[in-house]
Amino acid sequence: MAFKAKMERSAKKKGSNIILALDLEARSTRTLLLQSIKLLETVHPYVCAVKLNHHLILPLGLFDGVQKILKKTIAYELPTIMDCKINDIGNTNRVIAENYYNAGFDAVIANPFVGWEEGLEPVFEIAQQKKRGVILLCYMSHKASWEGYGQIVKKDDKKQLPQYVAFAQKALEWNADGVVVGATYPEKIKEVHKILNDKVPIYSPGVGTQGGVVQSTVEAGARYLIVGRTIINAPNPEKAAKQLRDTVNRVKQ
Amino acid sequence: MAFKAKMERSAKKKGSNIILALDLEARSTRTLLLQSIKLLETVHPYVCAVKLNHHLILPLGLFDGVQKILKKTIAYELPTIMDCKINDIGNTNRVIAENYYNAGFDAVIANPFVGWEEGLEPVFEIAQQKKRGVILLCYMSHKASWEGYGQIVKKDDKKQLPQYVAFAQKALEWNADGVVVGATYPEKIKEVHKILNDKVPIYSPGVGTQGGVVQSTVEAGARYLIVGRTIINAPNPEKAAKQLRDTVNRVKQ
Repeated sequence: MAFKAKMERSAKKKGSNIILALDLEARSTRTLLLQSIKLLETVHPYVCAVKLNHHLILPLGLFDGVQKILKKTIAYELPTIMDCKINDIGNTNRVIAENYYNAGFDAVIANPFVGWEEGLEPVFEIAQQKKRGVILLCYMSHKASWEGYGQIVKKDDKKQLPQYVAFAQKALEWNADGVVVGATYPEKIKEVHKILNDKVPIYSPGVGTQGGVVQSTVEAGARYLIVGRTIINAPNPEKAAKQLRDTVNRVKQ
Repeated sequence: MAFKAKMERSAKKKGSNIILALDLEARSTRTLLLQSIKLLETVHPYVCAVKLNHHLILPLGLFDGVQKILKKTIAYELPTIMDCKINDIGNTNRVIAENYYNAGFDAVIANPFVGWEEGLEPVFEIAQQKKRGVILLCYMSHKASWEGYGQIVKKDDKKQLPQYVAFAQKALEWNADGVVVGATYPEKIKEVHKILNDKVPIYSPGVGTQGGVVQSTVEAGARYLIVGRTIINAPNPEKAAKQLRDTVNRVKQ
């Protein structure tokens, strides 16, 4: 099954559009692994997928500790996304994607800024071969996002447009499985959603700790909410995840 | 000693401006590690630094196999650069930089596209605390580099300029330890060198296999040549490294 369909099935089955971002920090790798596993055990009923990034890959090792986490996500039938923000030359991008797919991830996140030829083309090729997903960055959640993602760029035909609009157009052209737009910028979600309609789903990080609000994010057109610190650092992560899931479901109605 | 000075000292001491890029591929992690170590053992007299990227980090593990490689580079007194092309939000960028610096790397490569506030600011902060380096991408060596690095962008004052010029200006403003400009685009090296003069050295990947030519790259203003496949895949890597070193030194005179 293709990644986009896998995500839809999981969201429907779990009745949730929340993706747990396991972006943890801990003093020891042992604690880091134990906390990640514990979070998965308590939070898994309320989420439809899990996202990992370098917070876990670097200290735990992709083919070492991370495998124990992926074993859990498989047991819970949760699709996994590797938030590696691929942005190297094609030869290296291919190696990165192969490693993450071979390790068990269902999708990778990549930066369209790197372009197609000898850039992301090999990533999309391997994704298609292995029936995995590629999600593209479109507008990130942090303050300086305007510097790159928000800048005005010129197209070949001398037309001017915001960078994130150019990226959304590339997502359509390259047949991406999703785009990332920060929940801290609901007006950008709305604009991107107008371009993509429901052809390419919007993944939105940044609700809670970073300042994004569930209602405006979902109403603007975000399909999946990627949530890390708001669940992870909550006094009761299980309760926080459940509340987030319920809030999204209420707004969707 | 600061990273920029460390690189200058190493280049002078070794009489070489070649940086070995250990971007290897192998069927097993055991072979990958053995080949990397063997390359270092034969090539180290002809290079002034070593660059690693995800080719080794993902299969070998940063705190596992990669440590054996870093033990060798320390023994050979070769500064090490982690080509991780950091481009996440600040909180994650900080964790990435901390991991690589704590693992023993002297510098990281980052993408200025992510911007400053809640972007690369924490990376530069930690680099300064730990006296390590940050090298910024300016124009990459692959074919699609024009899509992002070569696009025309508008500044606040409505002035238009190429993206790589904007990145070179950020490198000065942020006091970066170096910029990356592909050897496949010597005219871009020349332009960037005019902006940076000798304040920020240019690191240039892409000679040989990717099509860049040593003479035009060095004459355009590149200080360090990052070389991977041209050495790695040579019938005699030692000879290839020595020849490259000598060619650069001849052109420099």
